[in-house]
Amino acid sequence: MPDSHRVVVVGGGFGGLACARVLDGSDASVLLLDRHNYHLFTPLLYQVATALLDPSDIAYPLRRAFRTSRNVRFRQALVTDVDFERHVVRTHVGDEIPYDSLVIATGGVNNYFGNAPLAEHSIGLKTLPEALRLRNHVLSCLERAAQTIDPSERKAWLTFVVVGGGPTGVEYAGALSELLDIVLGNDYPELNRADATITIIEGLDRLLGAFHPRLGKYAEQTLRGFHIDVRLRTLVEKADDDSVTLSSGERIDAKTVVWSAGVRPWDPLPEDAPRKHSKRLEADERLRLKGHEDVFVIGDVAAVQTPRGELPMLSPPAMQEGRYVAHTIREQRAGRDVRKPFRYLDKGTMATIGRHAAVADVRGLKLKGFLGWLTWLLVHIYYLIGFRNRIAVLASWAWNYLVRDRPIRLIVRGNTDPVAEQTDPG
Amino acid sequence: MPDSHRVVVVGGGFGGLACARVLDGSDASVLLLDRHNYHLFTPLLYQVATALLDPSDIAYPLRRAFRTSRNVRFRQALVTDVDFERHVVRTHVGDEIPYDSLVIATGGVNNYFGNAPLAEHSIGLKTLPEALRLRNHVLSCLERAAQTIDPSERKAWLTFVVVGGGPTGVEYAGALSELLDIVLGNDYPELNRADATITIIEGLDRLLGAFHPRLGKYAEQTLRGFHIDVRLRTLVEKADDDSVTLSSGERIDAKTVVWSAGVRPWDPLPEDAPRKHSKRLEADERLRLKGHEDVFVIGDVAAVQTPRGELPMLSPPAMQEGRYVAHTIREQRAGRDVRKPFRYLDKGTMATIGRHAAVADVRGLKLKGFLGWLTWLLVHIYYLIGFRNRIAVLASWAWNYLVRDRPIRLIVRGNTDPVAEQTDPG
Repeated sequence: MPDSHRVVVVGGGFGGLACARVLDGSDASVLLLDRHNYHLFTPLLYQVATALLDPSDIAYPLRRAFRTSRNVRFRQALVTDVDFERHVVRTHVGDEIPYDSLVIATGGVNNYFGNAPLAEHSIGLKTLPEALRLRNHVLSCLERAAQTIDPSERKAWLTFVVVGGGPTGVEYAGALSELLDIVLGNDYPELNRADATITIIEGLDRLLGAFHPRLGKYAEQTLRGFHIDVRLRTLVEKADDDSVTLSSGERIDAKTVVWSAGVRPWDPLPEDAPRKHSKRLEADERLRLKGHEDVFVIGDVAAVQTPRGELPMLSPPAMQEGRYVAHTIREQRAGRDVRKPFRYLDKGTMATIGRHAAVADVRGLKLKGFLGWLTWLLVHIYYLIGFRNRIAVLASWAWNYLVRDRPIRLIVRGNTDPVAEQTDPG
Repeated sequence: MPDSHRVVVVGGGFGGLACARVLDGSDASVLLLDRHNYHLFTPLLYQVATALLDPSDIAYPLRRAFRTSRNVRFRQALVTDVDFERHVVRTHVGDEIPYDSLVIATGGVNNYFGNAPLAEHSIGLKTLPEALRLRNHVLSCLERAAQTIDPSERKAWLTFVVVGGGPTGVEYAGALSELLDIVLGNDYPELNRADATITIIEGLDRLLGAFHPRLGKYAEQTLRGFHIDVRLRTLVEKADDDSVTLSSGERIDAKTVVWSAGVRPWDPLPEDAPRKHSKRLEADERLRLKGHEDVFVIGDVAAVQTPRGELPMLSPPAMQEGRYVAHTIREQRAGRDVRKPFRYLDKGTMATIGRHAAVADVRGLKLKGFLGWLTWLLVHIYYLIGFRNRIAVLASWAWNYLVRDRPIRLIVRGNTDPVAEQTDPG
C-alpha cells in the first residue's frame, strides 16, 4: 500500500496495542514500534516477580498479534527522536521512518525523584527484566540467609522493604508474603518463617490512595493480618546495599528494596515540547499533541485533562484513548466529521491483596474480600491477550490455589548477548 | 543428626540427584550442593532454546525435591576445593563443609579444545542461561534481518551454523528449522523462509556417531529433507562476530554459531588428581576415586572403564552410578558386605529430529520415524521430574503439535543483580 495513509504507533503497551487493533483492517498502512518484541500484561507482573507465573504467561509477541493483518506491521525498535517538520521518527539504529499520522504511546518508567542512590539500590517493577531480577534476587536472599551464621546478617537478608502503597506495592507485598509462607516455610528447615519481615512504606496517610478510603483501610488490615509492617506518612530518604533510611530517621537493615512509589512519563520528544507540570505531553480534547494536527498522544505519556484532574497512569484510560485515536484516524480517512471530544468512561479500579482478598472500586460499587477477589480474577483473565496465555495463567492459579506451591522458583538469568543488547535497548 | 554419617554430594545433575534420592530415608545425614538452585532436565534444553518450552518446565527446584526428607538437605553453593586430609569441601564463599563420604558429581562444561575465539563467538547449549541466551539471540537475529536493507547483511543474520552432529546438535538443528518455519514463515512478511540457512557441521563421516550407522543416515536424510545443509568430515577452524571458517578453508558469513561439539569434565580437584587421558577422574570398579576409600566419582566427571571403553557422558550412566554409590553407602552403614562391582545396563540412546521423526537405539532394537518419535516422547515425559513439569511439557507439546505455534518467543533477559551473581557463580 505505497500510497496509503501511513500511521506510526510508538509503543506496544495497552494504548498502542488498542490503537493498532482498531486500525487493523482499515485502509491505513500502520507500523507499530516497541523496544521489546512483546506486549506486557503489566497488571500481573508482580506474579512473575513472586515466582507464580512464567514470563511467557503475561507477555504476548507483538508480531504474533498482527500475523494475519493486511495492514499492520510490527518492528522492534526504540524511537529516539521525532522530526515534526520532516514527518519522520528516528530509531536507535538511525533509521528514519516517515509518517502521516503519529501516535505516541511510550508509557512510563520508574520515577526516583532524582534520588540516584535509591535508583541504584532498589529494584523496580515496571518491566519483565525487572520482575525477573526481583525474583532472582529474593530467592537468592533466602539462600544467603540459610548460609550465614551471623544472626544480624541473616535478618538483613530476610528483610524486604516495599516502597509505595499503591496497587503495585500492595499486590507485591501480599504475594511476597505468600511466597515466603510457601517457600521459606516449607523448603528452608534452617530458617523460621517468622524471621522474615516485609515492610511497606507509603507517604500518604493510607494505602491505595486512588481507591475509596474504606478499601484502603481493608487493604491495610489484610496486610497487617499477614504480619506485614505497614508504615504510613513515611518516606524513604536514602538506601545503600545493606539498609534504607526513612524520613523518621529510622534505619532498616535490609538487602532488598522494591520501588513502586512513582512512575514518570517517558517520550522521545525534546524537553520543550508542550508539557504539563506532570511532564506528560499536553493533549487537546481530541488527544492531539497541542499544536500538532497529525500527532496524537495517549496513555501514561499523555496529560488528558478532566474536571477531576489528569487521567491516572492506568491501563483503562490508555486503552480507551488508543481506540478513540484509531477511530478518529479512520473517520478522517473516510472524510467524515471529526468525532466528538474524548470522554473517559471510568469502569473502576481493583487490586488483589492475597488469597480470597481483593478490593474493587467498580462504578460506585465497592467490593472486597472473596467477592472482590473473584471479580479481580475474572477481569484479569478476560483482559489477558491470547487464548494460550489465559489457559496458562488459569492453570498456574489453580495449581497455586490447590497445591500451594511455587514451581517457578528458579534463580536463572539469560547470559548477556551483545546482539540481543543492540536490538533491545531497554 | 549430629552423630550420623555425613555424606556430601557435589552436583545436583542426574547423577547427584539419583544418589541423594536413594540416600533419602537412610540414617546418613546428606547435604546436596549445586551452583544452581534447580535440577535441569538437559535432554529438553534445546526446546527452551527454540522457544517451545519455558525454563520452569525443565528445571526443578532442588530444595523442593527434598522438602519432605528427614535427612537430605540442599544448599546452593559452588565447591571450589576439596581437602582430602581434613575431610572438608570448601565453597565459593569460603565455608568449609566436613564429610565422611564424598560424592563428586560435578558434570561437564563446553569444550572448545582451547580455541578461545570460538568460545567467545559461539553459544553453548549446556546450561539454562545459555539456552535463554541462544533463544534471545536467534529471535533478535530475525528482527535484525527484517530491519536491514543490505542483502548480504540480511543473509548473515539468517545463517545459523550448528557445530557438532551428536544428539544435541541434531535435535537443536531440527527444532530450529521448525522454529524458523513457524515464526519466520508466519510473522515476518518482510522476509522469506527460504532466505534462512541452517548448516550442521560434524567432524566424523556421519551424524549421531554413538548410534547405529543406519540411524545416523536416517537423521542425515531427515535433516536434509528440512533443507538443512549437512557437512560431514568438516571441522570449524575459527569464528568471529560475522563468520566461521571451516577446515576446508570455506568461510560462512553467519551471526550465529551454536557449539555442541564437545563437553569436558569439570571438577574441583587439583590437576594432579588421578585422571584418565579424557581428564575424567579415575574410578575404580566400585566407583571410588582411585586411592580414596571415602570419595566416589559419578557421571560425566568419572572415567568408568568398561570393555568397550569409558562410559559415555550421558544421563543413564550417571543415574545408575549415583544409585549404585548410594546403595554402597547404605550397605556399608548397615555393616553388610560391599556390593558387587558396578555394572552398567545399557538401555539405549535416542534423539528426536523433528515432527514424527526420531531415532532410538534401544537394546538392539532400532526405531526411527513415527514409532521412534512416540518412544522418545514417552521416555522423556517419564524421566521428567515433578508432576507439574510433566503436565506443562505435555501441554506445550500438544499446543505446538496442534497449533504449530511458538508462544514463548520473547526476547527477555533478567537484569543483572549483584546479589544473585554472588550466590550463583555460573
